[in-house]
Amino acid sequence: MSKQKIPYKTYLTEEEIPKAWYNIRADMKTDHRPILNPGTHKPITAEELAPVFCDELIKQELNDTDRFIEIPEPIRNFYKMYRPSPLVRAYCLEEALKTPAKIYYKYEGGNTSGSHKLNSAIAQAYYAKEQGLRGVTTETGAGQWGTALSMACGYFGIDLKVFMVKISAQQKPYRKAVMETYGATVTPSPSDTTEIGRKILADDPETGGSLGCAISEAVEAAVTTDGYRYVLGSVLNQVLLHQSIIGLETKTAFEKIGEYPDTIIGCAGGGSNLGGLMSAFMADKLAGKSASRFIAVEPASCPSLTRGKFAYDFCDTGMVTPLAKMYTLGATFIPSANHAGGLRYHGMSPILSQLYHDGYIDEARAVAQTDVFEAATLFARVEGTLPAPESSHAILVAIDEALKCKQTGEEMTILFGLSGTGYFDLGAYMQYNEGNMTDHIPTDEELERGFSAIPQVD
Amino acid sequence: MSKQKIPYKTYLTEEEIPKAWYNIRADMKTDHRPILNPGTHKPITAEELAPVFCDELIKQELNDTDRFIEIPEPIRNFYKMYRPSPLVRAYCLEEALKTPAKIYYKYEGGNTSGSHKLNSAIAQAYYAKEQGLRGVTTETGAGQWGTALSMACGYFGIDLKVFMVKISAQQKPYRKAVMETYGATVTPSPSDTTEIGRKILADDPETGGSLGCAISEAVEAAVTTDGYRYVLGSVLNQVLLHQSIIGLETKTAFEKIGEYPDTIIGCAGGGSNLGGLMSAFMADKLAGKSASRFIAVEPASCPSLTRGKFAYDFCDTGMVTPLAKMYTLGATFIPSANHAGGLRYHGMSPILSQLYHDGYIDEARAVAQTDVFEAATLFARVEGTLPAPESSHAILVAIDEALKCKQTGEEMTILFGLSGTGYFDLGAYMQYNEGNMTDHIPTDEELERGFSAIPQVD
Repeated sequence: MSKQKIPYKTYLTEEEIPKAWYNIRADMKTDHRPILNPGTHKPITAEELAPVFCDELIKQELNDTDRFIEIPEPIRNFYKMYRPSPLVRAYCLEEALKTPAKIYYKYEGGNTSGSHKLNSAIAQAYYAKEQGLRGVTTETGAGQWGTALSMACGYFGIDLKVFMVKISAQQKPYRKAVMETYGATVTPSPSDTTEIGRKILADDPETGGSLGCAISEAVEAAVTTDGYRYVLGSVLNQVLLHQSIIGLETKTAFEKIGEYPDTIIGCAGGGSNLGGLMSAFMADKLAGKSASRFIAVEPASCPSLTRGKFAYDFCDTGMVTPLAKMYTLGATFIPSANHAGGLRYHGMSPILSQLYHDGYIDEARAVAQTDVFEAATLFARVEGTLPAPESSHAILVAIDEALKCKQTGEEMTILFGLSGTGYFDLGAYMQYNEGNMTDHIPTDEELERGFSAIPQVD
Repeated sequence: MSKQKIPYKTYLTEEEIPKAWYNIRADMKTDHRPILNPGTHKPITAEELAPVFCDELIKQELNDTDRFIEIPEPIRNFYKMYRPSPLVRAYCLEEALKTPAKIYYKYEGGNTSGSHKLNSAIAQAYYAKEQGLRGVTTETGAGQWGTALSMACGYFGIDLKVFMVKISAQQKPYRKAVMETYGATVTPSPSDTTEIGRKILADDPETGGSLGCAISEAVEAAVTTDGYRYVLGSVLNQVLLHQSIIGLETKTAFEKIGEYPDTIIGCAGGGSNLGGLMSAFMADKLAGKSASRFIAVEPASCPSLTRGKFAYDFCDTGMVTPLAKMYTLGATFIPSANHAGGLRYHGMSPILSQLYHDGYIDEARAVAQTDVFEAATLFARVEGTLPAPESSHAILVAIDEALKCKQTGEEMTILFGLSGTGYFDLGAYMQYNEGNMTDHIPTDEELERGFSAIPQVD
């Protein structure tokens, strides 16, 4: 198919939206190690998880056998309001770079939450509603997950309490406003509304918070409030399951235009974006049907894959959650406050961690945020869309790979995930525009402090 | 076609994006009266306009004969990055209202400018570039036009100086940041950088500004800077021409699903949104081929159609522009500072004014902003997308019309323009959420003050 024949944007029809999510665990050569009870170090059971999570979501979390899990009709109807999302050919970026590479991105920012997070939020709100719960609690970092979940809970008419990383709440007052418009209550974290929050504040009254802290508070609020459960927007198997819709749609779109990506690039904080984007393509690789190269991009200020340990660790700073085997900087690691945007998580999805450990994810690359905003600005000017800082990590590496092709002359097909828009990140763009953005690369000593808190399990 | 068969979103293919804009003046029964030189009161000539506007845009402005004007290839390529925009069936809103009406909206917010404004911005930047200009100046109210034009000028690599209504610049610092990211320079208006700005400030140092003031400053800056021209995002014939792409696409989408709208609703400030949305449908009405009902919705705080005079007036507060025959509140009218969002213009597109005067636009309705935000919040919760305050004027009236159908049992097909998103209007949403939003309906005395400044021409 000639270059001109491929449209700028490839859409599926609504009929082609996947009717089932893809559960990659059914195909993994080595499944990730089981999640452990932090007290007994024994694999955790559904019963133990029941006070914290919704019943149906626990089943999905522990399901390592069913390759496909049907998407309930009400969720599919909600998906139709903003999906299928387009697969975009970045013709203008290619031209600006003068690269022979073909650059594609799957654009997940075309909904009010501004990101892919809505794909899992609507599923989790649905199962909470089905279980007859009054409401759910959660944490949010940059605010995309909290916004997505407010939209989802507003739609199904259940309550939502959001603990928002304090530094983000300060940088993004409007994120709070949008969540409130959808009916959520938003508390900056750490707060004095929970025991763990009060403890964290006592230790460090000036802390800007972290996703790990906010998770601890949200879990505590869920288990101490009647008719509530806790939901999480990343890291968990269930989240990667719901996000698989991104990769499934992308693969179908590529089939329509007769292409297949050689390189697949996604930013990785907790792993929901890359986990979703890679799904159907990783299935091919696991089945020996493709040799695509997968690159996970993370911030140099929070480098769990590139500099972390592959170990059992807590999923939260307060050390109240089960233990997961993952790449981690230690549950007490909190990235520098100068880091803009999300991707502030100390750990990484156990699925992604195992795939990286086993070499199916070929490479992890840590990048500096000033370089990320330079790439973001170039992208915005040539492709129109203002990207989220998180997604711009993937843009930077996609540009780097395309520039390598320029040197080698290779006509590589590059796919990256444009997981969200930067409309709520203008504070950070302003900082960058005014030359006030800096980078913080943690020293080995800083990392050692985090590692020292990792429990001894293996 | 059964209800279930119509998708949530109807997209055209990129091949189906219109290749020509539709010039409604060629079909109008009575063309609007010519624009006049304010000194001589004689119809203005292309030569007189040349120091202010780009040459090709002047031709379009004065063209009342060609029904279709071809869209140049570079503009069509840019359109492909964010068009075609979807025609959305508001199933969830219908269900929430329990109305037999079928509600559709054309969604123009799916680009970084957050509105339909980009359709004309890219055209105007293109013609400026083609003419070899160094840059352009403009004004922006809520910031959507300024953002759109920054994207357009950034794309074609020409300079842009934006005069932004001061009250909007204060309420929306991030709008300024996004324009700067695309390379524009932004000055809050009135400013001390122009003669007219200094005069307005001397008269009222506390003014929050208005679109009319900002236009005066931008025009002055254009004519006093070498290699610059002035561009405008609404009101003008050329803008309605470029925006006709909205209605052309919408009509084709309706053909695909076998429907035709009975009622067409758009918000109207300067007229670019309604003018664009109605285009192809008004063509049918002018040709006697349809009896669709058109409703223009305006804010009660700036009621040019419902309470203004149909008279020749200046297009700007500084009274430096040519005179246009339009519905106007008087060039010195400045809406109350408590009015959120755009639609702050004292006048109205001469094309829309004439069509309203002649009864082709059936009705103008003025609505209070607290009602508008109530409708906006309902819409956001059931349909997902957070609407712009401007677009929410149309949402409110669409809801009212759908509720009337509930009483009568009529299965009417309602179309409204969702011209933009509210991501940069969270300050106003916050005010509404916290119960601090008020309405201001100008008194007859306030309006009389504005009318007294209208020049005697007719």
